[in-house]
Amino acid sequence: MSEKKKRFIAVIGGGQCSAKEAKLAEEVGRKLARQGATLVCGGLGGIMEAACKGASSEGGVTIGILPGDNYQAANPYVQIPIVTGIGYARNIAVVKSAQAVIAIGGSYGTLSEISHALQSGIPVIGLNTWSLSRNGQPDNSIIPAQNPTEAVNKALSLITNQ
Amino acid sequence: MSEKKKRFIAVIGGGQCSAKEAKLAEEVGRKLARQGATLVCGGLGGIMEAACKGASSEGGVTIGILPGDNYQAANPYVQIPIVTGIGYARNIAVVKSAQAVIAIGGSYGTLSEISHALQSGIPVIGLNTWSLSRNGQPDNSIIPAQNPTEAVNKALSLITNQ
Amino acid sequence: MSEKKKRFIAVIGGGQCSAKEAKLAEEVGRKLARQGATLVCGGLGGIMEAACKGASSEGGVTIGILPGDNYQAANPYVQIPIVTGIGYARNIAVVKSAQAVIAIGGSYGTLSEISHALQSGIPVIGLNTWSLSRNGQPDNSIIPAQNPTEAVNKALSLITNQ
Amino acid sequence: MSEKKKRFIAVIGGGQCSAKEAKLAEEVGRKLARQGATLVCGGLGGIMEAACKGASSEGGVTIGILPGDNYQAANPYVQIPIVTGIGYARNIAVVKSAQAVIAIGGSYGTLSEISHALQSGIPVIGLNTWSLSRNGQPDNSIIPAQNPTEAVNKALSLITNQ
Repeated sequence: MSEKKKRFIAVIGGGQCSAKEAKLAEEVGRKLARQGATLVCGGLGGIMEAACKGASSEGGVTIGILPGDNYQAANPYVQIPIVTGIGYARNIAVVKSAQAVIAIGGSYGTLSEISHALQSGIPVIGLNTWSLSRNGQPDNSIIPAQNPTEAVNKALSLITNQ
Repeated sequence: MSEKKKRFIAVIGGGQCSAKEAKLAEEVGRKLARQGATLVCGGLGGIMEAACKGASSEGGVTIGILPGDNYQAANPYVQIPIVTGIGYARNIAVVKSAQAVIAIGGSYGTLSEISHALQSGIPVIGLNTWSLSRNGQPDNSIIPAQNPTEAVNKALSLITNQ
Repeated sequence: MSEKKKRFIAVIGGGQCSAKEAKLAEEVGRKLARQGATLVCGGLGGIMEAACKGASSEGGVTIGILPGDNYQAANPYVQIPIVTGIGYARNIAVVKSAQAVIAIGGSYGTLSEISHALQSGIPVIGLNTWSLSRNGQPDNSIIPAQNPTEAVNKALSLITNQ
Repeated sequence: MSEKKKRFIAVIGGGQCSAKEAKLAEEVGRKLARQGATLVCGGLGGIMEAACKGASSEGGVTIGILPGDNYQAANPYVQIPIVTGIGYARNIAVVKSAQAVIAIGGSYGTLSEISHALQSGIPVIGLNTWSLSRNGQPDNSIIPAQNPTEAVNKALSLITNQ
């Protein structure tokens, strides 16, 4: 495979989100595209759509891995819709198809994606998202970022291409 | 379906665990069986095996939903092995097959199961496990229990049978 | 695991079926139960329901591996509903959870289950179901049976317990 | 989504294949690319690799939907590797992500993909592959083609874009 494959970044977050979160996601999408990274997401609305919109506006490639049975559920900025038919089990494919993950806000579906990524050893960068502690001790596996630029830079720098 | 189906409780936790955690899981399994509940788990070792061992010792029914391709990977106390062949996507089936979930310790795989349960509206009781905060605010969706008796009682009381 | 696990037989076929097919399936279910085998199926109507009805009438154990998100979709004779949430990908779990498969009638969903079973080396017995040829040559992997008794006897005799 | 999405064609067949079959698959890949169609496949060797090689040689886009956990299992001509982690359940995603399917040779895995496509109402074109009969009656759902050109033309003409 080409070098390009080694720069797939997943952007995860809620299918519904605030205007502020959408702005962050769109900026993340734009910056990923400018860096030549391919955007992977769950293909639906909210954070996913905003990130795809940003990436598309800069000529980036966008992949949407959909839970249902029809590509027409994809948001209008998805160029490569993958139709899985497996429901939320597609969350696993979203993160496994990426070399790093950027989480923006999000609810329990996003938390499941964060978990599957960390379980697979895929780095997760967080923007206004979940934080974790285990048995009373903080778990710092989610790497915090203060803004879209920092999130994208950290994600790209953490790709190990193992 | 019979009433019995409405008392399926998932016990989730690490495939490897400390002796202390195993003791908690075994006690949870015993108490579930005594209450006539059916135990659902991921079918492998650690917490899953300890819980199945406890349930079996009291004549309870144990279901193991396995990630791989062969039932022989199940721990020796699984009576009903389900062979999915879908890897960690089976985590979703583990929690969705239950009306309540008891999490004991655990790492990121357990966290993914907690997330999928909460996303599906299935109550989660926690014993020495993850705690969550979202965007700096505590998320109290995981209901804490201090010991196996409390965990089992809370799980059974929270079954809504919707 | 106990010996019992080694006698899980899947009964597959259409979610809708003719009265004649339902009668065959019910008889298969009864005979499996009388032999002490556990019935695995997709948990819904048609052939699945008829087989579960037959097995239940003889005190057999019935497992229904459901495609959707709610156990209440199971037919009334399913004792152990497994809720996968993965749609038709659950077809794979249906056959992989069994040591032999009996196919009765059926359409393309049933054909997918036959295929996944043969791919996994699980024997398939056919009653009025698909037959196959590959590149113009007959493929005789589906073992024909003339009636429920023959189907059940062949299925049980082909369990290899590898 | 763009028009382009409406011309995703899956090429399915064995992970191992004869030289003659590989030649057919490569020619199918070339012709799809010349028509501007995007190639979807299971991402591995044999027919999948030959089809991707053909498509790549004409500048086409190739998507490989992988069963395992690592993109490095993809054949060298896959540009967009999707890492599902769900084993053969990914067969469903391969066909559901396409608007038509071309089957070349193949064994039971290919037959499962044919089945899932027909179940989903996605047209299947066959080149030296399976043929089916149901309950003694031929089922002509697999549309025969004599050569790669005919297969590609039929596939593209059958896209309904519903």
